[in-house]
Amino acid sequence: MSETTAMKNSVNRIHVDDLDEQTYKNLIPYTSNMKTTKTFLYATIDMILRYITEMNEHDSPVIKNGLRTPAEYRKMFTFDIDDESISLYDILANCERILETTVRSGHPRFINQLSQGVDIISLVGEIITSSVNANMFTYEVAPVFNLMEESVLAHMRQCCGWSNKESLLKNGDGVLAPGGAVSNLYAVLAARHYAYPQIKKYGIQSGLHPAMVISKHCHYSMKRAAAILGIGTDHVYEVDPDESGRVSAEKMEEKILYCQQLGFSVFFVGITAGTTVFGAFDPIEDIVAVCRKYKIWLHVDGAWGGSALLSPKTKHLLQGIDKVDSFTWNPHKLMSVHLQCSTFLIRHSNVLMEANQMFAGYLFQPDKHYETSLDTGDKTIQCGRHVDILKLWLGWKARGQQGYAEHIETLLEKANFFYETISKREPFFRMVIKPPFINVCFWYIPPSLQNIDQTLPEYNERLNKIAPRIKERMMTNGTMMVGYQRLDHHPNFFRAIISNPATTKDDIIAMIDEIHELGHDL
Amino acid sequence: MSETTAMKNSVNRIHVDDLDEQTYKNLIPYTSNMKTTKTFLYATIDMILRYITEMNEHDSPVIKNGLRTPAEYRKMFTFDIDDESISLYDILANCERILETTVRSGHPRFINQLSQGVDIISLVGEIITSSVNANMFTYEVAPVFNLMEESVLAHMRQCCGWSNKESLLKNGDGVLAPGGAVSNLYAVLAARHYAYPQIKKYGIQSGLHPAMVISKHCHYSMKRAAAILGIGTDHVYEVDPDESGRVSAEKMEEKILYCQQLGFSVFFVGITAGTTVFGAFDPIEDIVAVCRKYKIWLHVDGAWGGSALLSPKTKHLLQGIDKVDSFTWNPHKLMSVHLQCSTFLIRHSNVLMEANQMFAGYLFQPDKHYETSLDTGDKTIQCGRHVDILKLWLGWKARGQQGYAEHIETLLEKANFFYETISKREPFFRMVIKPPFINVCFWYIPPSLQNIDQTLPEYNERLNKIAPRIKERMMTNGTMMVGYQRLDHHPNFFRAIISNPATTKDDIIAMIDEIHELGHDL
Repeated sequence: MSETTAMKNSVNRIHVDDLDEQTYKNLIPYTSNMKTTKTFLYATIDMILRYITEMNEHDSPVIKNGLRTPAEYRKMFTFDIDDESISLYDILANCERILETTVRSGHPRFINQLSQGVDIISLVGEIITSSVNANMFTYEVAPVFNLMEESVLAHMRQCCGWSNKESLLKNGDGVLAPGGAVSNLYAVLAARHYAYPQIKKYGIQSGLHPAMVISKHCHYSMKRAAAILGIGTDHVYEVDPDESGRVSAEKMEEKILYCQQLGFSVFFVGITAGTTVFGAFDPIEDIVAVCRKYKIWLHVDGAWGGSALLSPKTKHLLQGIDKVDSFTWNPHKLMSVHLQCSTFLIRHSNVLMEANQMFAGYLFQPDKHYETSLDTGDKTIQCGRHVDILKLWLGWKARGQQGYAEHIETLLEKANFFYETISKREPFFRMVIKPPFINVCFWYIPPSLQNIDQTLPEYNERLNKIAPRIKERMMTNGTMMVGYQRLDHHPNFFRAIISNPATTKDDIIAMIDEIHELGHDL
Repeated sequence: MSETTAMKNSVNRIHVDDLDEQTYKNLIPYTSNMKTTKTFLYATIDMILRYITEMNEHDSPVIKNGLRTPAEYRKMFTFDIDDESISLYDILANCERILETTVRSGHPRFINQLSQGVDIISLVGEIITSSVNANMFTYEVAPVFNLMEESVLAHMRQCCGWSNKESLLKNGDGVLAPGGAVSNLYAVLAARHYAYPQIKKYGIQSGLHPAMVISKHCHYSMKRAAAILGIGTDHVYEVDPDESGRVSAEKMEEKILYCQQLGFSVFFVGITAGTTVFGAFDPIEDIVAVCRKYKIWLHVDGAWGGSALLSPKTKHLLQGIDKVDSFTWNPHKLMSVHLQCSTFLIRHSNVLMEANQMFAGYLFQPDKHYETSLDTGDKTIQCGRHVDILKLWLGWKARGQQGYAEHIETLLEKANFFYETISKREPFFRMVIKPPFINVCFWYIPPSLQNIDQTLPEYNERLNKIAPRIKERMMTNGTMMVGYQRLDHHPNFFRAIISNPATTKDDIIAMIDEIHELGHDL
């Protein structure tokens, strides 16, 4: 009750009706009367509509009143679970407060993460998905969603140009995974099984010496996959990319030979289509040739850049993708689909099932009255699996191939505008590299650093501290959000990502101005 | 356009407004006008409300017109992605058709899976979650959700009785995982790291000989974890449970000794609180003693039965849980939270982080302006992670501890009613075992089998075919859904699970009658 009183003042915008007196027991199915359920759901939608409207006012804050400390949030919310229930009014009041305090990753000036934006089609997909509360593991409990996933994954493989050309490989297989890191885990697992099918049964035994060769700019989930799968991170050999973030086929081959000389058997090569920081595309076609020469599984992590396949203007960035063994591609990044929606695509039709199948009789009964190959659960590393396909399918249907092509092209155009605008702001802004894709990586150089010799170690030490300080200030103000990091020999720099269609050129200018404003006195 | 025409007839209930002429470009942020966004979201909620109302008419079908073949569904939906976009009307028409054809796992007569029901609080949680589209990996992008998760996981550990009693162990740690299978994977991974921290770096090297001992009735994900982690399924030694589905501490100890004699080092013991089929609870307290004696990690899979901790009347089923090393507990099963919401709880504070940490500098910058221990992403096997905590927290706040205690007790009472009703229907219904929990396992014995000698092999052969035939008929009719499986020497039997608060005693009687109706001529 005290919680009610405390919150009522700040959350007076909710259509309260009589929700104050009602609890979950007034909702269906605890009662058959739909009245409260209706009021409650409409109030939720009204709240969301206000949130989305407010967020799309471009000058509104990304974080209202800025990021606070845990202690402050703990004062604002009663996270503890009590014996007693709270009213439906209090439930909505808590939701309202969450929307008030949240980091608005759908805000046009949130350019901090690869996935961003709020997509109404995705939201509708998630509302339907949650209402159905289905489970992907068997055809019998989710027939339409399973067929939809099969169809969309086949379409994505078609985007990769995987067809029946080679007799040994069919059109492949795939699965939706809870994020790109898990997609990459699938890749290493599939490659391990392909090279050493006996490990599933007997474990990693002496004499195998498996090793992986990857680009140093590969996502860290590949290394972690090596840890999880019993390969060991020490047996992941990294190849240095060039200044633009791309590894060369020559260097990959050298590293493979080096591993072989050490007595290792390289079963996996990992490269990237759209690296996390630079957005660089490794030369797939060239590396395919090396991998075929040594008969090594080639995985391309296109979690970020895979969507470049969607536009005829950017497709060339993935030239050679039709010949790789597996591919990670996250619709929840460049396709505006809400978290989580990540795919793992594999050009070998049976490996995923063979690697993971456990034949659990209670779930995958062999005597079912339908074709049991429709039960996809046994090829995953999950058991129960959330329906991630509906929001993707709806989003794709709503846009068509053309809509996504346009989306990617527009984002590239904005990235280019960002780049050009920054270039005009020298010497206060300086690019780290010319953007190979949508990622725009740059330093802000405050006046205090302008006259220092850049070759002195002091320069880099001081520059290294600039981005974190600016970030701290923007988080405290809540005005915008952009990520920063060190990479290789480069001191901390900003990485701007625009994947939200809401972000305009005016936003870009405003954000560049904001960084200057926040940093010029440092 | 042809799609529009084809669907319009069957989906005339949608408030069309002018959505027929509108596309995704009429939605925010493609336009700043909120009108279409509002219409579209309200239409979605209206559709959902109709769906939920209809589903809660107890005599309505679980699958309208029954389960169809893939070919039939492919005729009903245009799964293919075209070049052109489809209208917002068509998006809703597709959603409507999905709701029409879906397997209604929220229906009171869907007793097929451990997770069932549609919970309005969860639905609201998912709507908010999707609208925010946040990512759990760092504090800076999801501060409130991270603190909420921390708090709820601590509360769950408190339910387990894990406190600071022992100097070597703090209050532990935990993470939300995409399903119980992944929670169990975390368990084996954590145990492997605890026993062999060097594997992370060096891989599984010769001379280690790791092995696991589990109950034969453990979830198959433990065996699969052994496959994934490079242990090998052959090195998972299974202990036969007794007729009630429980393993004894003595047999577990024998198996551990047996493994040791073979030269293996047992690093993991896995048992279950609420087995998948029988719902049996292994004697945790006794097995704790054995594991401590041999210094072996004890994991309890309470994906299903963990929620028994929520009622003082069932808590004793998990006696000894305060002394185990790790625990899987899925709120998306017995706590009515929508898929997915699964927890992995670990009594050792640092193992999860130590096992998984990769120090990715671009995401977990060491020079952040806040306490970086708040960034939980590096202890997971994911990178990006969906917010699964909000629906759980809201559901728990809405019910309070008392509400969930009552929920569990009501479900047990219904299971008992199911059991008693079945017992009165002998000889046509026969229990497999007396229910140790909510699972009710039984055979339907049609008149044609009544006069056959049960000791003849023919009897079991024929009985084995009964449940699949009845299931086929109920799926074709769509009247109800209950699972079946073989287990050990038992021929196919039904496993009824009631975890949906919507299911009434009348439903139970109706379902038992339905099975008789569907099976009496077999």
